Parts: sequence; structure tokens; C-alpha cells
Amino acid sequence: MKVPEEIVELIKREEYFTIVSHLNPEGDALGASIALALALKLRHKDVQVFNSDGVPYMYNFLPSSELVESGIDRERLKYSTLFVVDCNDLERVGLKDPECKSVVVIDHHRTITDLGHIRWIEPESPAAGLMIYNLIKELEVNINREIAVNLYTAITVDTGTFRYENTTPEVLRVAAELVDAGVNPGEVSRRLYESWSVNKFRLFVSMLKTVEIVHTGNINSAIATINLDMFKETGADASDTENFINFPRMIDSVDISAIFREFEAGCWKASLRSKGNCDVSLIALHFGGGGHKNAAGYKVRGDIGDVRRGLVEAIQDSLSSR
Amino acid sequence: MKVPEEIVELIKREEYFTIVSHLNPEGDALGASIALALALKLRHKDVQVFNSDGVPYMYNFLPSSELVESGIDRERLKYSTLFVVDCNDLERVGLKDPECKSVVVIDHHRTITDLGHIRWIEPESPAAGLMIYNLIKELEVNINREIAVNLYTAITVDTGTFRYENTTPEVLRVAAELVDAGVNPGEVSRRLYESWSVNKFRLFVSMLKTVEIVHTGNINSAIATINLDMFKETGADASDTENFINFPRMIDSVDISAIFREFEAGCWKASLRSKGNCDVSLIALHFGGGGHKNAAGYKVRGDIGDVRRGLVEAIQDSLSSR
Repeated sequence: MKVPEEIVELIKREEYFTIVSHLNPEGDALGASIALALALKLRHKDVQVFNSDGVPYMYNFLPSSELVESGIDRERLKYSTLFVVDCNDLERVGLKDPECKSVVVIDHHRTITDLGHIRWIEPESPAAGLMIYNLIKELEVNINREIAVNLYTAITVDTGTFRYENTTPEVLRVAAELVDAGVNPGEVSRRLYESWSVNKFRLFVSMLKTVEIVHTGNINSAIATINLDMFKETGADASDTENFINFPRMIDSVDISAIFREFEAGCWKASLRSKGNCDVSLIALHFGGGGHKNAAGYKVRGDIGDVRRGLVEAIQDSLSSR
Repeated sequence: MKVPEEIVELIKREEYFTIVSHLNPEGDALGASIALALALKLRHKDVQVFNSDGVPYMYNFLPSSELVESGIDRERLKYSTLFVVDCNDLERVGLKDPECKSVVVIDHHRTITDLGHIRWIEPESPAAGLMIYNLIKELEVNINREIAVNLYTAITVDTGTFRYENTTPEVLRVAAELVDAGVNPGEVSRRLYESWSVNKFRLFVSMLKTVEIVHTGNINSAIATINLDMFKETGADASDTENFINFPRMIDSVDISAIFREFEAGCWKASLRSKGNCDVSLIALHFGGGGHKNAAGYKVRGDIGDVRRGLVEAIQDSLSSR
């Protein structure tokens, strides 16, 4: 990975920086932004970090997470360099018509806009955090524990803690260096994966009890329900259901994982996930929803029995005959 | 980690080797054993790998897993060097009174027996696989893809794919080298975490239904049961229970996760996991078992109600007063 010389030069030259990342930020957006801010501060720069949604509760553990502000100083922005990190679209940032000195995009998503006077986009990079790591190296800033924890979190979140296909030898070597710099990998993982509330766990068990595996043609679907009663009984809420959809996927033979979540009486939000070539966006479209090939969703109203049967029929119609 | 010179010398000198590991083998026992066998074969040695329980279905993907036999050639053993890997107790191997030329123990568990003419025990090593990696380096055998996948699996299983406290910079650097040697980390993780059978999933749900959260002093424990009826109803077997212990740990407030698995009527294998400074090996010792600070186990006989109460009392006695 080659860090553009012009970014390094610009940082050396300028004094005021504003770092922004996307709405609903996760570990990569936050960790990469904060690590960059800390490095710039060590170079005596004036830095503001902005995220429209602020820092979600589960990421409060990131050192210097209090740097992230959910309001932006537009006067200050006028004479600042704007770093757009982990996205390349101001709509995803939630920032309209910013007036600033110049815009630098640092992202690892496939480019969709032409935002940025300087655009550094590495679709092959597993995480924006890995790009920031390389940038900090070029800036000759010492990676202290605070920076290391932010970079480690960024990298682990976007590689599923080294479980995804994008886990390269470079990622593992950088991780080793960050642990040398003071990261406690067990502690970071605890924060990321072992911070469920008891209520969330109870809802999880209730949801798993409803999993039914349905065979339609050559497709196996695991279908689950979370109704309003289950929320009431467990004390959990909708935000607790994030990630639940990944669990039925653990079953080898399951091609599609679906959860129906009741958001008001008789109204259901269907989340669909699939493996490999199974395109669930076709099914979501059928019900007026949308999404991508392996992750899609739709809303539907009715008796849960009918709603589940409707999904199975749609799977049969659109996929089983492939 | 210093590899004992006498083990290297012995390997150079001897011709016949038998490698054994513990009953209910997991990725570390199997990966370490197979990697050692492959390295010895590359040094033109005659090797047998024995595991009384054979290779569980989920580990069939390990290259050369077919080397592992569930029967041992006792005649051949008489003139062989016996390597006892990932345990240091022949009872755990399920091998009675073996007649052999000499016994070498390579283990990372706290020692409990005096087995072995040569004893190499590294309680600080995250995995037996990491010890075997260092041994293979000393043997100057090239780590090919087959050896690398076995070592990578061994190391990842015993570090929770780099999520546990025992994830050291060395572990991550060795993992990087193994990926360089041809391991596909995404593929290994899919085999380990997304290859559940439907029966295993059903047993998982049954087990989760039994989870009870018990508060003793300042310690919260999540205690679950898997009895013989549950195996019968779901069609799953003991090897399917690997990893189950990690799920109740996801709850933020849980310090200790415990599962009692009935292996014959009224006989239970207790598996304990803890977070941070909570030392479950003390509890296991109390019941005549053993293990590490954060992962230990013991066997116990009795009514499940009594057995669960016994654990809670032991937690109270040994830990709550810290």
C-alpha cells in the first residue's frame, strides 16, 4: 500500500483539520478517525473530529472517543482541511455543502462519487484503519497505546477479528505491532463481542427457539421470528437484534437466513441474509423491499404464519428453480 | 519459548514415533499432532498418529487428517518414541500401560502428572500448536501449506481466533507467517464457525434454554446443562458441543460460563470459562480437575441439581471473597 505523498505534504503544510466519517459509525470509521486525529495532534495540529451520530455506547471504550463531536464548527471548517474517512460521499457523512479549504478522501470502499481534491481509495485494503496505520507511519508519529487501540479496533471490526477472507499476512503483522504498542486483544474482543446485556441474551434465546429450517427445492432457509411479546418478556429492544441474523448462518446447509421482527402489531420487518450465489434481493424486491445479493430486507403486514408462508413461496418461485 | 535440545536430538536419532493426544480432541490437539507428524515424515521418520476418539467431523478439513487412527499398533509402539501432545496424562489419552521406548510430553496445560522421560510443558504458551511450530523450526523442516493449515487451526482454536487474552504478538506474527505459507484464514474460520450441522444447532438451542445466571457475591455465573436426553432428542453428539461454552460469555455481566455435559448416566463433565482475573482452575482443582486460569474442567457424578449447586458453592468459597 502506497501512501500518496501529497497527503503527507498537505498534513505537514496545513494547520487546521476536520475529520469526518459515515453515519451509523462502526469500529473502522471511529477507530480510523480517532487514530488519525491523535496522530495529527502529536504533530501539533488543530483537529476536530465529527460524526453526525456520535459514538455508539459500545465504542465508548475507544481511547479519546470523547474527541468525536456530533456538531461541526462551520466557521472553523472554512479554513480547515476536511478528511473524509471510511466513505467517499458527503451524503453518507450527513454533511451538506461544507465550505472548507480542501477535501481529502481516505476510503477502502469502491468509489461511487468524485468527491475530494485528493482521493486515496484502496478497495483492496481490509480496513480504513490499515490505511491510517500506513499514513501515520509516513508521518513518523510514534504509535502510542491510544492510537494502537483505535487502529486495532478498526482493523479487527472490518476483518471479523481475522475471520474474514480479507485477513492478509499484512493485517496480522500490523496487529502484532499494535499489540506490542500496548493493545490488549482480549479486552478489545470483550468490548466488541462479549458486551451483551442479559435482556439481549434472553431475546436471542427466544428468537432461536423459533428457528425453523425449511427446504424448498435446492434451497434451505432458516426462518425466525421476534414478536412484540418477546421484546416485552425479555426487556430487550430493536437495537438488540443487530447481528442475530448471523447466527442461523452458522448452519452448514443453510443458504438463506431470515428474521421477521414485529415493529408494530401485525407489521413485520424481514431481514434476509444469504451465502454465496443465493440472491435475496430478488425476494425483497418481490415484496417491495430492496438490498444487495447477500443482504436484503422488506416490510410486510399480516399474521406471522401467513407472512412466513409468503416468504417460503417467494423463495420457491424466485430461487428454487435456478 | 525455548525448544528443549534433547527433543530435537531425540527426533534426529530415533526412527519410529507414535503421536497421541487427548480424548475429545479439538483443533489444537489435532492440528498440533498432525503438523508434528507431517514434519517428522518430511524428515523420513516412521510415524503413527493415534487418537482414541478419531477425528470429529468438523475437523475433517485438516490436511492429512486421515493420518489419525483410532486404533494403536502396540507391537510397533514397543520400539517407538511416544509423543504425548496437548495433555500430560495417559488417562486423558485413553491409553493404558503403553510399552514404548520413551515418552515425550509436549503440553501447555499446567502439569498435573509426572509422565514423560522428557517433559516440555509451557503453561504460558497459548497453544500446543505454537510449541510444535517452534519445534518444527528447530527441526529445519519447511512449513508447507499442509503443515501451516494444521498449525493455524491449532493456534486459532486455542486463542478463539485471536480473541482471547492469550493472543500475543508472537501468536499474530506466527499466524501471518502461516498465511504466507498458504493458509486461507476465511476458509479455516468458515470450517470452524459456520459448519454446524442442523443437529448441532438444535442441541445449541436446547442448551441455551437451560442457561441460568447465578449471582454469588461479586461473581456472576452462567450455568448450562446438556444431558443425555438432549443428545438423543437432537441427534447431536459430544463433539458437537465444542464452542458452546463461549456463547453465555457474550453477556457483559457474566464472569464465569459453565456447562455440565452428561457423558454417561449421572456422570458430568464440567467445562468452565472465565473472563479476566477470575481463576476457574482453582474451582476445577477443588473437584479434582484442572486447566488454566480462564479455561478449566472437571468430572463429577450425581443429580444435576446437586452438581450445579456444588459448583455455585465452590465459586462462592474460592472466588467471591477475593
